[in-house]
Amino acid sequence: MPKTDAHRSINLEQKFTLLEDHWQPRVVAELNDYQFKIARVLGEFVWHDHPDTDEAFLVLEGRLRIDLPDGSVEIGPGELYVVPRGTQHRPVAEEEARILLVEPRGVVNTGDVGGELTAESDVWI
Amino acid sequence: MPKTDAHRSINLEQKFTLLEDHWQPRVVAELNDYQFKIARVLGEFVWHDHPDTDEAFLVLEGRLRIDLPDGSVEIGPGELYVVPRGTQHRPVAEEEARILLVEPRGVVNTGDVGGELTAESDVWI
Repeated sequence: MPKTDAHRSINLEQKFTLLEDHWQPRVVAELNDYQFKIARVLGEFVWHDHPDTDEAFLVLEGRLRIDLPDGSVEIGPGELYVVPRGTQHRPVAEEEARILLVEPRGVVNTGDVGGELTAESDVWI
Repeated sequence: MPKTDAHRSINLEQKFTLLEDHWQPRVVAELNDYQFKIARVLGEFVWHDHPDTDEAFLVLEGRLRIDLPDGSVEIGPGELYVVPRGTQHRPVAEEEARILLVEPRGVVNTGDVGGELTAESDVWI
C-alpha cells in the first residue's frame, strides 16, 4: 500500500502506467477522509448511485459521458463534473478515457448495485 | 454566484479565462462540503498552515514549488500533492502556473496568517 511520500508529488501519468484494467479505481492520495483515485474507463458501466455522497469526475484524457435519469453530460479533457449524491448515473466511454475521481474514503464504484464490475475500494497504486 | 449546471461539465480552461489575478482562488465546483478552486499563481506566497485540514494542489499548467519546513516539493503539470494539516508551507511559482485546489468549504488561503495576499473564500467563478 504505497502511501504518499512527504516530499514528492504524485505524477498521475506515471501512476497510469501501473494500471491496466478498466473500471478499477486506484487510490493515489488522501485529503482528510477523501480520496483521489485514478481509473481507466472503456465501454458502459452500470447504472448506480451513491446515496451518501457526491462524486467528482475530472477527465484527464479522452472523453467520458455520464448518463443521468433525465439526460447526459459530456466530459472532455480538463473538464470536471460532480454527480450529486443519490443521483442515478451511468458512466460511458466510447473510447478509453483516463479519469481522476474524488470522493470519500470507502465509496464502492458500483454503489449498492454490486455485480461483476464492482471493484475493491481503498486499493492504492 | 454561478453554481454548477446539472447537465454541464466545468471546463477549467474556460474558467481560467475569467480569472486574471494571482493568488485569488475561485470556486468552480462543490463536492459535499469540499470545494474545487482554480487559481493563477506567480511569485512567492506567504508561509502559513491550515490547522484543521489537508490541502490538495493539482498543477494544470506550469510548475509550483511548495516550500516545507524541512525541504520542498516540486509539482509539475498533471502532478498532485497534498499538504498535511498543520504543516507550514509556502507555495512559490517562478513563472505563472495554473492550479486546481481541493479543500473543505471555508478554508482561507493564508490560514491564520492574514496579510495582503488573503483572498475572500467561497467566491465562485
